Amino acid sequence: MRILILNGPNLNWIGKREISIYGTLSFDELLKSLQKRFSEHQIVSFQSNCEGMLIDRLQQADSEEDAVIFNPGAYAHTSIALADAVRSLSIPTVEVHISDIYKREPFRHHSFTAEACIKNFVGFGMEGYAMAIDFLVKKNQSDLNL
Amino acid sequence: MRILILNGPNLNWIGKREISIYGTLSFDELLKSLQKRFSEHQIVSFQSNCEGMLIDRLQQADSEEDAVIFNPGAYAHTSIALADAVRSLSIPTVEVHISDIYKREPFRHHSFTAEACIKNFVGFGMEGYAMAIDFLVKKNQSDLNL
Amino acid sequence: MRILILNGPNLNWIGKREISIYGTLSFDELLKSLQKRFSEHQIVSFQSNCEGMLIDRLQQADSEEDAVIFNPGAYAHTSIALADAVRSLSIPTVEVHISDIYKREPFRHHSFTAEACIKNFVGFGMEGYAMAIDFLVKKNQSDLNL
Amino acid sequence: MRILILNGPNLNWIGKREISIYGTLSFDELLKSLQKRFSEHQIVSFQSNCEGMLIDRLQQADSEEDAVIFNPGAYAHTSIALADAVRSLSIPTVEVHISDIYKREPFRHHSFTAEACIKNFVGFGMEGYAMAIDFLVKKNQSDLNL
Amino acid sequence: MRILILNGPNLNWIGKREISIYGTLSFDELLKSLQKRFSEHQIVSFQSNCEGMLIDRLQQADSEEDAVIFNPGAYAHTSIALADAVRSLSIPTVEVHISDIYKREPFRHHSFTAEACIKNFVGFGMEGYAMAIDFLVKKNQSDLNL
Amino acid sequence: MRILILNGPNLNWIGKREISIYGTLSFDELLKSLQKRFSEHQIVSFQSNCEGMLIDRLQQADSEEDAVIFNPGAYAHTSIALADAVRSLSIPTVEVHISDIYKREPFRHHSFTAEACIKNFVGFGMEGYAMAIDFLVKKNQSDLNL
Amino acid sequence: MRILILNGPNLNWIGKREISIYGTLSFDELLKSLQKRFSEHQIVSFQSNCEGMLIDRLQQADSEEDAVIFNPGAYAHTSIALADAVRSLSIPTVEVHISDIYKREPFRHHSFTAEACIKNFVGFGMEGYAMAIDFLVKKNQSDLNL
Amino acid sequence: MRILILNGPNLNWIGKREISIYGTLSFDELLKSLQKRFSEHQIVSFQSNCEGMLIDRLQQADSEEDAVIFNPGAYAHTSIALADAVRSLSIPTVEVHISDIYKREPFRHHSFTAEACIKNFVGFGMEGYAMAIDFLVKKNQSDLNL
Amino acid sequence: MRILILNGPNLNWIGKREISIYGTLSFDELLKSLQKRFSEHQIVSFQSNCEGMLIDRLQQADSEEDAVIFNPGAYAHTSIALADAVRSLSIPTVEVHISDIYKREPFRHHSFTAEACIKNFVGFGMEGYAMAIDFLVKKNQSDLNL
Amino acid sequence: MRILILNGPNLNWIGKREISIYGTLSFDELLKSLQKRFSEHQIVSFQSNCEGMLIDRLQQADSEEDAVIFNPGAYAHTSIALADAVRSLSIPTVEVHISDIYKREPFRHHSFTAEACIKNFVGFGMEGYAMAIDFLVKKNQSDLNL
Amino acid sequence: MRILILNGPNLNWIGKREISIYGTLSFDELLKSLQKRFSEHQIVSFQSNCEGMLIDRLQQADSEEDAVIFNPGAYAHTSIALADAVRSLSIPTVEVHISDIYKREPFRHHSFTAEACIKNFVGFGMEGYAMAIDFLVKKNQSDLNL
Amino acid sequence: MRILILNGPNLNWIGKREISIYGTLSFDELLKSLQKRFSEHQIVSFQSNCEGMLIDRLQQADSEEDAVIFNPGAYAHTSIALADAVRSLSIPTVEVHISDIYKREPFRHHSFTAEACIKNFVGFGMEGYAMAIDFLVKKNQSDLNL
Repeated sequence: MRILILNGPNLNWIGKREISIYGTLSFDELLKSLQKRFSEHQIVSFQSNCEGMLIDRLQQADSEEDAVIFNPGAYAHTSIALADAVRSLSIPTVEVHISDIYKREPFRHHSFTAEACIKNFVGFGMEGYAMAIDFLVKKNQSDLNL
Repeated sequence: MRILILNGPNLNWIGKREISIYGTLSFDELLKSLQKRFSEHQIVSFQSNCEGMLIDRLQQADSEEDAVIFNPGAYAHTSIALADAVRSLSIPTVEVHISDIYKREPFRHHSFTAEACIKNFVGFGMEGYAMAIDFLVKKNQSDLNL
Repeated sequence: MRILILNGPNLNWIGKREISIYGTLSFDELLKSLQKRFSEHQIVSFQSNCEGMLIDRLQQADSEEDAVIFNPGAYAHTSIALADAVRSLSIPTVEVHISDIYKREPFRHHSFTAEACIKNFVGFGMEGYAMAIDFLVKKNQSDLNL
Repeated sequence: MRILILNGPNLNWIGKREISIYGTLSFDELLKSLQKRFSEHQIVSFQSNCEGMLIDRLQQADSEEDAVIFNPGAYAHTSIALADAVRSLSIPTVEVHISDIYKREPFRHHSFTAEACIKNFVGFGMEGYAMAIDFLVKKNQSDLNL
Repeated sequence: MRILILNGPNLNWIGKREISIYGTLSFDELLKSLQKRFSEHQIVSFQSNCEGMLIDRLQQADSEEDAVIFNPGAYAHTSIALADAVRSLSIPTVEVHISDIYKREPFRHHSFTAEACIKNFVGFGMEGYAMAIDFLVKKNQSDLNL
Repeated sequence: MRILILNGPNLNWIGKREISIYGTLSFDELLKSLQKRFSEHQIVSFQSNCEGMLIDRLQQADSEEDAVIFNPGAYAHTSIALADAVRSLSIPTVEVHISDIYKREPFRHHSFTAEACIKNFVGFGMEGYAMAIDFLVKKNQSDLNL
Repeated sequence: MRILILNGPNLNWIGKREISIYGTLSFDELLKSLQKRFSEHQIVSFQSNCEGMLIDRLQQADSEEDAVIFNPGAYAHTSIALADAVRSLSIPTVEVHISDIYKREPFRHHSFTAEACIKNFVGFGMEGYAMAIDFLVKKNQSDLNL
Repeated sequence: MRILILNGPNLNWIGKREISIYGTLSFDELLKSLQKRFSEHQIVSFQSNCEGMLIDRLQQADSEEDAVIFNPGAYAHTSIALADAVRSLSIPTVEVHISDIYKREPFRHHSFTAEACIKNFVGFGMEGYAMAIDFLVKKNQSDLNL
Repeated sequence: MRILILNGPNLNWIGKREISIYGTLSFDELLKSLQKRFSEHQIVSFQSNCEGMLIDRLQQADSEEDAVIFNPGAYAHTSIALADAVRSLSIPTVEVHISDIYKREPFRHHSFTAEACIKNFVGFGMEGYAMAIDFLVKKNQSDLNL
Repeated sequence: MRILILNGPNLNWIGKREISIYGTLSFDELLKSLQKRFSEHQIVSFQSNCEGMLIDRLQQADSEEDAVIFNPGAYAHTSIALADAVRSLSIPTVEVHISDIYKREPFRHHSFTAEACIKNFVGFGMEGYAMAIDFLVKKNQSDLNL
Repeated sequence: MRILILNGPNLNWIGKREISIYGTLSFDELLKSLQKRFSEHQIVSFQSNCEGMLIDRLQQADSEEDAVIFNPGAYAHTSIALADAVRSLSIPTVEVHISDIYKREPFRHHSFTAEACIKNFVGFGMEGYAMAIDFLVKKNQSDLNL
Repeated sequence: MRILILNGPNLNWIGKREISIYGTLSFDELLKSLQKRFSEHQIVSFQSNCEGMLIDRLQQADSEEDAVIFNPGAYAHTSIALADAVRSLSIPTVEVHISDIYKREPFRHHSFTAEACIKNFVGFGMEGYAMAIDFLVKKNQSDLNL
């Protein structure tokens, strides 16, 4: 499988700031470890702070990848346009949030994009990306009774 | 008249996806038919998934076009910035939505941009663009008692 | 001190439109007068209509400037992503709004970014930028009992 | 086609009172001009201030007309019974409001009857009736991609 | 006993339209079968789409009948005037709704008139009228421990 | 002056039912006493249980009377159409409620028609009609500093 | 038919306490009279104050009885678990409340279990159990047009 | 007097867990000290985690004890059934909460059972039980002007 | 590790009813497969429809097991007492829901117990139990960067 | 009769400021004209900006006057203490507001004190005081059918 | 200890009015009995209807008394200023309400001052003052496990 | 200019209590430093805990001072009467709050008086008074583009 990890606003600073919440592991280091761990699959990634470019990349994924792992960051709570983009894809999208958004401010409790994704991994830290890949692979192999 | 049709996020996929809602007519085909139907006017179009670029284009229209037909897509429901941009134009803007947003999810029932536009065509399908042009032309000719 | 003045959507039109609200002074003229008035400091500015580019510039400021004066325009009311970006900076950010947002429509009464800023100057017109610089300088000199 | 224009409470005073909102054109004058403009169709009209008589006339239209253009006036906001009547018809009903009810008091923002109609023309002034006829005729000729 | 069955708006179409909800039995057929089933009592009926005429008939019932079975249709949800009329009667009124209003749209969940009636039969179909007669007769014979 | 007293639903039963609230004085007796008390003026009255006929009579008053005293009964709380009718009159309308609606159920606390009337007499019993006439006469003589 | 009457919390005290509300008839006396009245059917009963044991008994009924008459008492307003249990049964369940819960405190106006039952008898006193049996028997004989 | 102290869910762990809130005194130790302190009275106690068994014990108390001191724990906030049980007793019930529930989460601010009890001691720690006994004894001796 | 799987109301019917939602796999079959899959650990299970007995079992687990996997079923949404019990344990508890409760009725969107658990697996079907075991084991081995 | 006119905060400025709302008549001038108009009665007055002193004066009125006409100004909307003071008097209190508080800001729509007064005169300007005296005198002479 | 009993608005009338609620015991009589009952302590009292004077007296107590028993009357529900005053004291304050404010009108259910006090005695009648003294004395002697 | 600094309840304790919030600078010390700093102007001050006396002093300022700097303390959130007093002044009033009320309890987020003031300085500590004087002086010299 070819899987796109798509990261939204501020996620380019993971491992660099707010390390009490996100730890010191950078996303690049994580990506490398994921590529090693799931070496039989092709894991690519893209990050943007711009809502419009995330929509562009989602549309592009429709013809280039088999699945998307999407961490929309704060756009999860405000962007109907991103949710619409996810909804119009023909490939499955799984949402990941590093921190547990349900234990933070109330305005982070609702996710427009989550309603468009087929499954959500919330609050599992960086491990959430691995769980999402694992889930997509198993689902692809019809290996899950879901 | 020179009229800009400005399309927001995901509208570049019209005719390609969710055809049960939007039909199979692409926007390019529609544009050509509109240009033929209203051949005495100049109809140009621009699409972007990016809120900021839509604002840029609206500001540019102020000096380049006579009127705007704006389909803000999902940004209608979340963008005060776009509504402010419309409000600051000296040329009239008419809002168009292809589907009937009032018969969809509640979060699509309110439109910030509609409050800034002078008139709205909602739920008339692709025909809504033609109705909007027709309205702008008639209004320009002081042909309407509105 | 080196201070970035960061202006959000539609603020490139200050002095040109809606002059009953904002007056006829353009931001460029203001900037020059501020640079003269606070000549011992370096005042730079950046404007974008795009949420994502404002986040980019905030992140860049973290290593290039000593403080940010941020007028997020209408994004103040809708952007959690911008508030998160402010929150992750190691330099102080002060929010400025030219008009008194609390005396306008209800949807302008709440500001996500204001919650992330250390202080807010609302409704002081163009003078608000000067007051913000003054405040940051004094605070830097530990001259204020705050 | 035979089309009934059904007007609700206070609409018998159009052109006579509140002319700043509705203009000086009386409904009778409008009706004549509509009959001329759409001379290949039969346009009839009925007005009542009484909710019950409007329901009676709607039921009668089911066997006598091919379509209804309904301006329920203020009953739009309070009458579930009228909406039920519309819903039980086998012919299409289109709702028209002369003024833009969404820019007036909040209690005029919701329309029970609009939910039962197939399409709504709101805020196009007296021209709205013509647009509604035009729409019904085109729809009848399968001329619209809706 | 002499009992009035009073039917509100759109109930003259029972058995004719929306038969998936109401069946094909017309109210006249039902009335005949009820008169046969409760032949020792006098069952009369009246229907109007007009709120005011329903009030008139309720007031008249006060001196002409011993009890009222009232199906106010959609007026149940909007008419305080009808509820006041019921409240001022000296004879008992029982409310009947053919469909289960609590399983339909939220605006049908509250009934002003039900608060004024002594008992309500909701969602028992056409049989609800029979249950209401049965209840009134038994109550008249002090046969119920209520 | 020629003044119309217009009574809404159920008010034809004043003095006959719910006498603990309204007393035993019938409206006819009251009318006679009012006509005697204000013999220099012409006091006429009309009552209907039908919302539409009340609108009809209000429109008629515009050309036949100098002022209206309107007791809309329960329609006060539900009828926007009646309020619109009052609003479109060129003669002044004063609202009267016999009982104190603010001390009854919450759904009686709001009056659409009261917002359209120039003054309201609430809870002064039958005397409220006399106070309203007195007020209209004085106002007509420019005798009040209001 | 074999029918289970299942009574929830505090209903073992019927006839003994709060007799102004419930009368002096005990449930045992009622049960005997019901068994006599419907002697061609088998009427059994069970009562528990414990939510869990009521669920247990509902599950057991699925294989032992043909229908359930359920008076969940106060658990109606708080127990989603009981509603789920009812929903998973293959036999029909009818809800009974002795008193009219809609005329009591607001927290008694909503019933989770009622949404899962096929029909509800509310406020008919002890007679409600008889009406429920009658309904189930008729429904079983396809004797009702519901 | 014979007084029952009835403890609800999780109160069997008092003195064992969450000692920062509840201290290290176990309920058994408290009970012994209360029995010594009020030796002229009979103090018995019962604890259960099961709502139904608490109702059973309340009903039993009606014939076996003179008063109940009830700490319903978290059931205070969710159980209408327990409140109904308290309400049906002929002996007085006093509610006790060890911690100050009004200074904890909002969902602990409302108590269904408190509305049924004659008095409440909230936030006085373990001493609350003693205060409740004291209150019941004094009340029994008509020693209080309440 | 010794891990308790604790199942709440109606979960004893998994695999037997509502198979469109839950599939045909019974919990016993699942348990066996889990015990095989995680054979180096001891997996025990307990089910009850009774809220009180679930609290009892949670308290017992505190001394007998190393961790709890808790599927509270519908009690998740109504039981503060269960959440308190989870909160007072010294061993970790993970919540599991087979179906995606956020895509069902609104009253299933909030979980009191989830707030007390350290992590939640929602909507992963029967696989959720395996994921929870996996999570607890990894967490025990400090193998996760959470 | 001896009647106290008690005026609350800011009412000492009547006739001096905000004359577009209140006119140029000072309260002293009004008082003199009232004393002349109702010369057979003793009209005294007191004004204070202090809530506490208004309560003091109300209590004093209980033994010194026969009735109170109370214009609580803005305290009407915020003072439960004043309402309690009114409620504890043995003489009747009538509330007067010069302007129509129901046509001003929403926070002026509710009056705590009005609930404690026997009647309210709202929006009749300075004439309201005269109407209140008139009402109290008539009521004292049992001359009103209220 | 020297303890101030501070009484708010209308409490100077205790024993004189509304005796069905408060009894016939005056506060002076109560004070004497309290001084006798707690003769080893100095009990002083102050009453004012004026919010400002109560704040003054609270501030004075900070240097003159060891504790305050505060019955703020109706100011409890409206005065943030009084709550702030209590919060700034270095001596403990206990709130007392004679009647059970939670069983009265909803606007009496919230107390700003209670949030600032360390403990509250609500609804124990005049005895509440004694309970508060008792509590303060015991607390002073470290005699309570609170 | 002659400027009144008007301080509301509890502000006489600034510098003495809650020094973690307000610092140790007393208001008298601040006043002296302000008088020195703005020696060309006359700065006077007044403090009261009593709402009524603050209104008195505001009215007096209308004829004695040129501007008011008003720190209404907690009365900001509850006093419509103070806001009305500010509104009726012919001289400008500026509101100051030492702490940032928007970062404290929700009941401190709304200020009635702020709506009546021309500008607000919130959360600038004691420096806020100086900023307010500065603002008033500049505004007086028409030196600000506001």
